[in-house]
Amino acid sequence: MTLLLNCDLGESFGAWTMGMDEQVMPHIDQANIACGFHAGDPLIMAHTLKLAAAHGVMVGAHPSYPDLVGFGRRSMNCSADEVRALVLYQLSALDGMAACQQQQVQYVKPHGALYNDMMAKPLVRETLMATVASYHRPIKLMLQATPDAEQHRAEAQQHGIELWFEAFADRCYDDDGKLLSRAQKGAVHDHNKMMAQVRQLAEQGSVTTVGGHTLELHVDTLCVHGDNAAGVAAIAGIRALLKKAE
Amino acid sequence: MTLLLNCDLGESFGAWTMGMDEQVMPHIDQANIACGFHAGDPLIMAHTLKLAAAHGVMVGAHPSYPDLVGFGRRSMNCSADEVRALVLYQLSALDGMAACQQQQVQYVKPHGALYNDMMAKPLVRETLMATVASYHRPIKLMLQATPDAEQHRAEAQQHGIELWFEAFADRCYDDDGKLLSRAQKGAVHDHNKMMAQVRQLAEQGSVTTVGGHTLELHVDTLCVHGDNAAGVAAIAGIRALLKKAE
Amino acid sequence: MTLLLNCDLGESFGAWTMGMDEQVMPHIDQANIACGFHAGDPLIMAHTLKLAAAHGVMVGAHPSYPDLVGFGRRSMNCSADEVRALVLYQLSALDGMAACQQQQVQYVKPHGALYNDMMAKPLVRETLMATVASYHRPIKLMLQATPDAEQHRAEAQQHGIELWFEAFADRCYDDDGKLLSRAQKGAVHDHNKMMAQVRQLAEQGSVTTVGGHTLELHVDTLCVHGDNAAGVAAIAGIRALLKKAE
Amino acid sequence: MTLLLNCDLGESFGAWTMGMDEQVMPHIDQANIACGFHAGDPLIMAHTLKLAAAHGVMVGAHPSYPDLVGFGRRSMNCSADEVRALVLYQLSALDGMAACQQQQVQYVKPHGALYNDMMAKPLVRETLMATVASYHRPIKLMLQATPDAEQHRAEAQQHGIELWFEAFADRCYDDDGKLLSRAQKGAVHDHNKMMAQVRQLAEQGSVTTVGGHTLELHVDTLCVHGDNAAGVAAIAGIRALLKKAE
Repeated sequence: MTLLLNCDLGESFGAWTMGMDEQVMPHIDQANIACGFHAGDPLIMAHTLKLAAAHGVMVGAHPSYPDLVGFGRRSMNCSADEVRALVLYQLSALDGMAACQQQQVQYVKPHGALYNDMMAKPLVRETLMATVASYHRPIKLMLQATPDAEQHRAEAQQHGIELWFEAFADRCYDDDGKLLSRAQKGAVHDHNKMMAQVRQLAEQGSVTTVGGHTLELHVDTLCVHGDNAAGVAAIAGIRALLKKAE
Repeated sequence: MTLLLNCDLGESFGAWTMGMDEQVMPHIDQANIACGFHAGDPLIMAHTLKLAAAHGVMVGAHPSYPDLVGFGRRSMNCSADEVRALVLYQLSALDGMAACQQQQVQYVKPHGALYNDMMAKPLVRETLMATVASYHRPIKLMLQATPDAEQHRAEAQQHGIELWFEAFADRCYDDDGKLLSRAQKGAVHDHNKMMAQVRQLAEQGSVTTVGGHTLELHVDTLCVHGDNAAGVAAIAGIRALLKKAE
Repeated sequence: MTLLLNCDLGESFGAWTMGMDEQVMPHIDQANIACGFHAGDPLIMAHTLKLAAAHGVMVGAHPSYPDLVGFGRRSMNCSADEVRALVLYQLSALDGMAACQQQQVQYVKPHGALYNDMMAKPLVRETLMATVASYHRPIKLMLQATPDAEQHRAEAQQHGIELWFEAFADRCYDDDGKLLSRAQKGAVHDHNKMMAQVRQLAEQGSVTTVGGHTLELHVDTLCVHGDNAAGVAAIAGIRALLKKAE
Repeated sequence: MTLLLNCDLGESFGAWTMGMDEQVMPHIDQANIACGFHAGDPLIMAHTLKLAAAHGVMVGAHPSYPDLVGFGRRSMNCSADEVRALVLYQLSALDGMAACQQQQVQYVKPHGALYNDMMAKPLVRETLMATVASYHRPIKLMLQATPDAEQHRAEAQQHGIELWFEAFADRCYDDDGKLLSRAQKGAVHDHNKMMAQVRQLAEQGSVTTVGGHTLELHVDTLCVHGDNAAGVAAIAGIRALLKKAE
């Protein structure tokens, strides 16, 4: 299986810097770019688009609930109309800025609490799929690879949209195929376990769960994190490994 | 001369309502739609676009400095890069949302302090023209009709963009072709003077200044205000007059 | 029973006006003043404090989740530390501004979704009580009068704070003492039913529920709404009635 | 002359970290704490106050124009009423939160563009002095030590407030006593020149200007910067030097 690497980027804001975008960009395939609601002011969005173009990286919109101080991590009880409008606004803003630089946004990956709500609440997922489907040209939706993938694919088909399924390189999966809560021991893999999980995903299309079971997962892209030097080194390692796997 | 009517709309925000958009829309030709930085959240933008479509009204982006609490009326010392990015962001957001409803943004009219800075500061005007020119498809810039129109047209030509010149129906012009400051007596016309000014603009392409001089102005569109019932009535009156003038 | 009248005021923001504060203030006893997070910028807070002082009206802080575009009506999944900090910030801002005008904030009434969460989620209520108790001088907390009042009073006693219980003049109560959802028929009383409910609360300390039962409620203050002319007229009517009841 | 050390702190926001506050706090005397308008959300303000208390550091309010994305560095054309209200709001918020932790805000140091406007525009300075004077208890205003100090002291006396004059350890002064623009060569001292300037300020109450002149400056406090490891090391060095100077 060919795995792409995706990473959340452009998460600085104004005078604040977050993420080692310049170190990360050379190693990844897909940049999930913040659109101003949890991070990423217009100037930073323009810079991040330019950086992606320089490295031939595909760009996706990374929209969020309107919660700058909470970094989009707190679920907000928004109506379907509100979710639709705020996603279209953020997606359109990024896509238009991209078009001015001869780029095109290829997909939407909801951020933070909006992503979690998409996975946990069918109504939010339905709203997001309908929103992506209503965009004025075809665009994909990225969501988490789980044992429910078939159902998610069926839902997407009804909306006429395509999906990208992502897995997490460094997170331990529970026996139901969900991420083990960070509150639990072993939730985040050390380097060796992370590399083993990546290899297993690439070669066998499965992960080994916390209970020792083998869980098949259809995965298109791996989510990696570039917030610090260790994260960037891990990305480089994964990149090298996946090159071999292809 | 055929004069269009333009009006600032979509200036509500969240739970706050501003403007009598539903009463105004049937009478105008061009809706300048707020894009979220001084007014107009995503939901309101979607509603305003729909309302414009229902009445066959052309839509323009009405971007602002990032100053919600000041309604974009306070000049901010932004760099050229900042102005370019924040205008492209707002324009793209509205244009993408419009495209999802089979509409297309036709022009940019800067709002409030950004508009005033465009008229008063050559560097801001230069930045705005370059920004509009950098958009991924041709789009017009709306600015004030003044005796400097020739120079502004030359500047626009260098950027390869087209302009729309607007005049104000209800504002008295000083002898230099600027709007008389609202602080001065007679700055805002009563109904009769307003209608006379509109007729003179439509029939002779000129205004009579505060000093009694006749000032020729090339005008494409008239800015009208629909904040209250009197304003809406005035717009209806102007609409009836201009129909006759055509 | 002597009933005070409280009303949410100072809910304008920047260029947007909400509420007929000048018409309402003469009739009420307690002004719940927005503190900037869902409404009420600093200038409006200063004006509202001045208006309350002119009418001898007691002032309370009306803090909210940080959600301007949603007017604080959407529940946000904030941590206890976040709730504590954002309430103290808003309360302190208003109280300090009040002190500069020889006024003093007397109580805290959470706004919108924060109020609803306080009533529905024991952990949020616990956090709010602890927050109010941690203020640098004694201050009261206003919450809804329900059949759980005894329990709420016991909780408050543990924190060493005093409570004000409020009822709603125009809302129908269900048989459990909760407000009937606005989605249901009869949720909002017409004028006559509202006046009857106020009279019953003032004279008998009870309401008649949707099912026809008599429910005793200990009530200190009545919440009234002054968003429009009808609301202001209703407040004046209630004021006249309560004067007689005293 | 005894010189205090002051530093801008609490300039993180939500998920973004700025400044090495924990490393800086042990070395300084005065913490200028951001109040939410350019940086510093309520949670960070509470943490910063606690950190200051742990090290016995005096706290001041560091209010800003409302410009989060611009970090308060862009001048905004606010009215005197707006400036007064937004400064009182920020000062009150911090002071009330401090009082809940048995601390008290001792002074106001305007931030960024508001600071620059205070020094350059007599009307802004007049507004700020009147605002500080209107606070409900005596509080000081911190401004830049310049050759105009006598005039500033006279202005302050008219308002009945006290001033703290600050100098900059690492910035070169021009012959008029202003900071050399950062755009010019030599605007920021290297370590040795900085230490020499601190020593001269502490021992002789003067600086040597870019033109080689000796300029007397009455200075109460030195502004230092703790954004990075080099800055923290410099602060430690200055602290050691000033201990000897006392």
